[in-house]
Amino acid sequence: AFFQRWWEEKSSNIQTIVRKLVDLGQLEFINGGWCMHDEAAVHYIDMIDQTTLGHRMIKKQFNKTPRAGWQIDPFGHSAVQAYLLGAELGFDSVHFGRIDYQDREKRKADKGLEVLWRGSRTFGSTSQIFANVFPVNYSPPNGFGFEVSDENIMPVQDDLMLFDYNVEERVNDFVAAAIAQANVTRTNHIMWTMGDDFSYQYAESWFRNMDKLIYHVNKDGRVHALYSTPSIYTDAKHTSNESWPVKYDDYFPYADAKNTYWTGYYASRPTFKRYVRVLSGYYLAARQIEFLVGRTSLGLFTTSLEDAMGISQHHDAVSGTAKQHTTDDYSKRLSLGAYKVEKGVSIALTCLTSSNGTCPSSVAKFSQCPLLNISYCPSTEETISAVKSLVVVAYNPLGWERNDFIRIPVNDENLVVKSSDGTIVESQLVEVDNTTRNLRKFYLEAYLGTTTDKPPKYWLVFQAFVPPMGWNSYYVSRSTGYNRTGYVSTMVSPRNDMVEVGPGPLKVSFSSESGQLKTIFNSVSGVDLPIQQSFLWYRSNEGDTVDSQASGAYIFRPNGTTPTVVSSSVLLKIINGPLVDEVHQQFSSWIYQVTRLYKNKEHAEVEYTIGPIPIDDDAGKEVITRLTSSMITNSTFYTDSNGRDFLKRVRNYREDWDLEMTEPVAGNYYPVNLGVYVADGKYELSVLVDRAVGASSIHDGQLEIMLHRHTLRDDAKGVDEPLGEVVCLDGSCKGLTARGTYYVKVDKLGHGAHWRRTYGQQVYSPYLLAFTHEDEISWKSYNVAKESMMDANYSLPDNVAIVTLQNLDDGTTLLRLAHLFQAAEDPQYSVIAKVELRKVFGKRTIKELTETNLSANQKKSDMKKLDWRVLGDTESGHTPLKGGLVDNKALVVELGPMEIRTFLLKF
Amino acid sequence: AFFQRWWEEKSSNIQTIVRKLVDLGQLEFINGGWCMHDEAAVHYIDMIDQTTLGHRMIKKQFNKTPRAGWQIDPFGHSAVQAYLLGAELGFDSVHFGRIDYQDREKRKADKGLEVLWRGSRTFGSTSQIFANVFPVNYSPPNGFGFEVSDENIMPVQDDLMLFDYNVEERVNDFVAAAIAQANVTRTNHIMWTMGDDFSYQYAESWFRNMDKLIYHVNKDGRVHALYSTPSIYTDAKHTSNESWPVKYDDYFPYADAKNTYWTGYYASRPTFKRYVRVLSGYYLAARQIEFLVGRTSLGLFTTSLEDAMGISQHHDAVSGTAKQHTTDDYSKRLSLGAYKVEKGVSIALTCLTSSNGTCPSSVAKFSQCPLLNISYCPSTEETISAVKSLVVVAYNPLGWERNDFIRIPVNDENLVVKSSDGTIVESQLVEVDNTTRNLRKFYLEAYLGTTTDKPPKYWLVFQAFVPPMGWNSYYVSRSTGYNRTGYVSTMVSPRNDMVEVGPGPLKVSFSSESGQLKTIFNSVSGVDLPIQQSFLWYRSNEGDTVDSQASGAYIFRPNGTTPTVVSSSVLLKIINGPLVDEVHQQFSSWIYQVTRLYKNKEHAEVEYTIGPIPIDDDAGKEVITRLTSSMITNSTFYTDSNGRDFLKRVRNYREDWDLEMTEPVAGNYYPVNLGVYVADGKYELSVLVDRAVGASSIHDGQLEIMLHRHTLRDDAKGVDEPLGEVVCLDGSCKGLTARGTYYVKVDKLGHGAHWRRTYGQQVYSPYLLAFTHEDEISWKSYNVAKESMMDANYSLPDNVAIVTLQNLDDGTTLLRLAHLFQAAEDPQYSVIAKVELRKVFGKRTIKELTETNLSANQKKSDMKKLDWRVLGDTESGHTPLKGGLVDNKALVVELGPMEIRTFLLKF
Repeated sequence: AFFQRWWEEKSSNIQTIVRKLVDLGQLEFINGGWCMHDEAAVHYIDMIDQTTLGHRMIKKQFNKTPRAGWQIDPFGHSAVQAYLLGAELGFDSVHFGRIDYQDREKRKADKGLEVLWRGSRTFGSTSQIFANVFPVNYSPPNGFGFEVSDENIMPVQDDLMLFDYNVEERVNDFVAAAIAQANVTRTNHIMWTMGDDFSYQYAESWFRNMDKLIYHVNKDGRVHALYSTPSIYTDAKHTSNESWPVKYDDYFPYADAKNTYWTGYYASRPTFKRYVRVLSGYYLAARQIEFLVGRTSLGLFTTSLEDAMGISQHHDAVSGTAKQHTTDDYSKRLSLGAYKVEKGVSIALTCLTSSNGTCPSSVAKFSQCPLLNISYCPSTEETISAVKSLVVVAYNPLGWERNDFIRIPVNDENLVVKSSDGTIVESQLVEVDNTTRNLRKFYLEAYLGTTTDKPPKYWLVFQAFVPPMGWNSYYVSRSTGYNRTGYVSTMVSPRNDMVEVGPGPLKVSFSSESGQLKTIFNSVSGVDLPIQQSFLWYRSNEGDTVDSQASGAYIFRPNGTTPTVVSSSVLLKIINGPLVDEVHQQFSSWIYQVTRLYKNKEHAEVEYTIGPIPIDDDAGKEVITRLTSSMITNSTFYTDSNGRDFLKRVRNYREDWDLEMTEPVAGNYYPVNLGVYVADGKYELSVLVDRAVGASSIHDGQLEIMLHRHTLRDDAKGVDEPLGEVVCLDGSCKGLTARGTYYVKVDKLGHGAHWRRTYGQQVYSPYLLAFTHEDEISWKSYNVAKESMMDANYSLPDNVAIVTLQNLDDGTTLLRLAHLFQAAEDPQYSVIAKVELRKVFGKRTIKELTETNLSANQKKSDMKKLDWRVLGDTESGHTPLKGGLVDNKALVVELGPMEIRTFLLKF
Repeated sequence: AFFQRWWEEKSSNIQTIVRKLVDLGQLEFINGGWCMHDEAAVHYIDMIDQTTLGHRMIKKQFNKTPRAGWQIDPFGHSAVQAYLLGAELGFDSVHFGRIDYQDREKRKADKGLEVLWRGSRTFGSTSQIFANVFPVNYSPPNGFGFEVSDENIMPVQDDLMLFDYNVEERVNDFVAAAIAQANVTRTNHIMWTMGDDFSYQYAESWFRNMDKLIYHVNKDGRVHALYSTPSIYTDAKHTSNESWPVKYDDYFPYADAKNTYWTGYYASRPTFKRYVRVLSGYYLAARQIEFLVGRTSLGLFTTSLEDAMGISQHHDAVSGTAKQHTTDDYSKRLSLGAYKVEKGVSIALTCLTSSNGTCPSSVAKFSQCPLLNISYCPSTEETISAVKSLVVVAYNPLGWERNDFIRIPVNDENLVVKSSDGTIVESQLVEVDNTTRNLRKFYLEAYLGTTTDKPPKYWLVFQAFVPPMGWNSYYVSRSTGYNRTGYVSTMVSPRNDMVEVGPGPLKVSFSSESGQLKTIFNSVSGVDLPIQQSFLWYRSNEGDTVDSQASGAYIFRPNGTTPTVVSSSVLLKIINGPLVDEVHQQFSSWIYQVTRLYKNKEHAEVEYTIGPIPIDDDAGKEVITRLTSSMITNSTFYTDSNGRDFLKRVRNYREDWDLEMTEPVAGNYYPVNLGVYVADGKYELSVLVDRAVGASSIHDGQLEIMLHRHTLRDDAKGVDEPLGEVVCLDGSCKGLTARGTYYVKVDKLGHGAHWRRTYGQQVYSPYLLAFTHEDEISWKSYNVAKESMMDANYSLPDNVAIVTLQNLDDGTTLLRLAHLFQAAEDPQYSVIAKVELRKVFGKRTIKELTETNLSANQKKSDMKKLDWRVLGDTESGHTPLKGGLVDNKALVVELGPMEIRTFLLKF
């Protein structure tokens, strides 16, 4: 992003010089994404998008394809980074600075800093990458930094006229530092990273000194120094014919000292993390709609969001580790971009739904409601007249038909909902609770300046059936009495010790006395699990006599291992209805939770509202939800890697070294983007999340998820502010309230993957809802009420998702298909999947199809792979399932487990 | 100096670009000296030398002659700077930032910041310069500095994509700042100084913002902005046809706030100031000797000192306001240079004195003794054998014959001194006092590492007669008894209340009881003045409740107006002899003073030894010597400007504005380089100094001179260290001891100038002494014992000195002749003086003579002068005396009062 800003304002003269340097290899693009993305709190689709944006720019402007990954600063490194954003991009190598301090010491001792990293258990050696971990952080060896503002800078003085002449001394220092590094490195090639954060503000200072060092060191001759690049380095390593150790899985969690586990940022700034995730799904859907409407005068309106989405993936952005004002800037950019995309989507939907081809270039019939989560949707709240119905258009970005429930705020209880075919759809009205009303009121005033808000009375709930990659319309009309179907939910007063709720197959029981969850029972699967749920908080350590390390935006350092229970006696309110039962729990003045059980869903949807976290006791708090079952889980739990592969985690254990565990809580936290689960011999208990969080299983049978954090100290890792998010109104500020949803399901052992994968995809890609008010008859006359891009009756198999469908500025269309299951994850779905592109694209004709690497900057067939020699390889003979070449006639794409295939299409 | 360092290491490519920028006028050399010299503590000969060095480099490399003086930072501005280092250089203008805050306010109010400055009362309008004083300091207007490291930088953001877009706001700020400045400036041209101390570490940051400002401001159109230079600015001012106010004299002292008088640095670091001054005289003499020996294989050995001398004139060097380690670096450079020049001089003298033309290229027969002031001179301390005499060669750099006394340390009391013609010369032995022995011992160990020092027993004193610009030899031999003339001085025990001393016409009386000076009586002139002398110290203010300003390297802020008397009862020791009487006074454990009265001198020579200044009472001290007479001096005293013009000073008064005096002591201090005097209706009391000092007359009839300072606080003006000079030995440090000499004379009113001018020149240019041991007969056979460059019997008149005689690297010889008297200063000498160059150069034949400007970078005839319109000029009709053109045949140079004429000669 910064390079592009710089590049665009340069003169053609400078551009020519840069191009020449690039062509000569003196300036090499590494990584080449829009930013150096985070690896813990970022979704793989966002990683792909931001990398593609950068790679295609570089390809276009310089005709270059980056060969090296450069993730020097992220605070831990993910499996997906290694294989997907590494090998599958066509990278030969990835380079980084931060791994666990114990891991680093061990690797230095056995020269294992440089490895062949196989991030994917499914792909193994076929998707490995040469990974270079620096022996210290990513700064130069001590004394070889040359930033002009550094007071301790030790320039090379080779002017004999001057009294600080120090060539011999500096050459000796150089050789000593080189030899020290060589002693922990295989081969006689070592890399010095000649830079640091905020460096090169005056580049001359660096280059001048490096020029001198290279000259004098080579004159000395004991070692040879040269200006190099990661590619030159990797080639030298490769040419050496050395054998390399193998590394599996990932480098999480990251600790750089005993009490310094960088596991706080997994959950820092939860509402910013949600905003990024919500927009990620929205951006995906919007690009589909942009594709569907075709290349009209609207142009590529979704590009308004690409820069903001790209930079938000930065390892100090979505990670929650930027200063408040920087985070505000990210949010502002996202919001501005989203607003434009939303406008484009509304217009595009106006076009798409128009049956007579009327396609306005700027006037949108529709409005959308990004603040639905706090019940704000002017279009649905509006009084529905006798003449015009509220038309709800739901777009489904997935490749299969959906039947998700729609919830919209309304103010009338006499409403009837009809489907596009005119049939009446069962609906239910649920009163908007006070917590939501207050939340809405405060945030609308704080952020929209609304001082006269009138919260809506009800949520209108109904189930919508939407075809794959298409839309359906629903009409909400004034009930004339005879056709009123809206069912106003009833409140239940429990009469027994236990109260069981759930209109469908899933029954959940709560204690009437304590108000707490007791059991989950699924009448379909027969699963019956006693389970308890509570909110707790860890007190943030502010530094103590043992260690001054404080908990903060990066670091999670609880003050002890036992969190405080927010409340063991919870106010309970139960609401019944035909479509959904809701269990409202007030855990405290600042924690509210609603559990929703839908009539034909086998999972529970749990919406929490947390905040403002009280700090009047001068204690920072890190709030978790904890599910406690009696399952014997053998210290083991599973978390996803960037929403893609699930990795096995074992409490108090690392596969790569003998762990000395000094932080029994923080040291067992892992990043979660899709979900987390535990299993015993009988069941799997799974939780899916709506944003990046941190999660763990601190005791067998337990799962805990960190949902919100408020620390009173900075953790001295760079952000230089405590993590204390506030919302201000009229100059008075209170702590941020975070609202979100997690989803809980219990399956029989071996049966959880299907729900995790398919429902996980639905969580990421909810219906895109658009609203308008029109006469139902007139609407039907002039509009296409229901449509799918795909052939009728065709849909993608459950194990495939379209993760990208995007019109590019060169006239081609970018398509990415992703298999959603790992090898052996599910007996039915961990198999080759087939996608018939002809049927996917329905009436459109594919004229040309080119398979590319992941970032679409080179043909798949042009990708080169370096062969590496491996130390003690145990994987021989194993070949993963992968799809074959796509026949240009048949146009059937095969995908093996976890495979993502990228195509450029012309229609 | 820095430009030259930079330039020399640039590629020819960069050099070509720079030359082009210079030729296009985009890069303009201003000032163009080796440094931006100080104006208070610097001698005019050093100002000329360092400017000439820079100007000739610029001329040689770029064929450019700077047109603008640029003295933005010096802490006050001297008259000599205005006319001599301004108009006489050929400058049209001089620009600076620092003038008294009251003066500035008045000048802003009446648009008098820009003036025609007539620094010379002798030359008046014929040597005026356009002086531009900035309305604030030399930084840009608030908010327009663009240093990259400045946290408050306000860049111009003209990228509409970015949220900090601020073009309108910044343009408005710019226009407002421009108008504010225009309101205090004549004409509609104003100058912004776009830089500051330590700025342009990343120049791009400045130029980028200036580019943008110029673009957008000119687009706005309310004001017009352009990249400019002082010359462009001055031309615009000149073209405007505006009339300008006139300013006379100088801008001393400088205060930037009520209690912030920058008058401390006049005396800060007294020993460094002495070193610079001693080397200045030595450098002048050495260049003469270099000229005399001719262009031999020795080369231009004196260039070893030109860089060090040049940078030492910087306004944070000789001023005493650099950090200690920086000052040490200056000293080291001076010392290294001086060592090489000393070696060259010794070889050159070997050649010059060789009668058979034997001229070694590297072996010197002679040694010199730069540490004579502390009695250290291995060559003379050595035992004088029966075979070899100690040969003392004294070189006289002045244009007239001298008869100064030579004092050398010896260890034998049986010595005889003979003149070069064989006659015995009267001599006197004076025991080396304990103060000197201890001083020598400690400093030799601290600086030379000598741990086994054996101090000499005696000073051998004799009078040496040396011809103009030539040398004479004296032989010190073992006395065989019959010819012993060495007179061992006797110690006198006073028997009366008063004791009168003095072997010659001058009689000085001391009180036997108090040990203090009582009267000065001159039997020749009949002057008889009761006078008292004492040492006192001002306690340095460390900041108080009124003002946090502390006394420090720059600032003199005494804690009250009454200094503390060191001692009113002084130990007295009197030594008599035929050549010199010495009065030794021990004022305290840390102040020792020796007053010397020579047999045929009418002034007293006073050597003080001050230090370590005691600070165990936690009080910084600023030590003065004060002469108190009963003269009624009407608040008036006179101090020199850079050793040249004497300026009238009136206590508590400024000619340019109504002074509000808030610092009755510090605000009346002025810089002194040559001397200071007071007068009443009858007498003139004059003091000449051996280095830069601060001086004042705080009460009528008094003169006080600040000789040494030790403050315990930094004055927050940039040096960031207290002024606390120490000398360390084996890790233990004690305060610096300063030793120096001042000269006191009382004349009848109107008769003091001759002594001040001629003896002042002798103080600046003492004999250059060289020593060797040889058989007297053999020496006489093979050596020229006495010689003058000039024709026999010719010498310069008393009112002319040769201030430069130097072989240049282009084969020419640079000659500067200076008239030593101001207009009307002396009835006999303030007249046209004539110098017959043929006789000056004796056997050498002048082939070509070109008169140039002061810095010899342009012909005198090529110098252009801008005519300026003057507001209320009262000077009409007055034409100063000046010498006419030099006839190329007659080669007689005429000089009017204060005139300095510069020539390039070819022989």
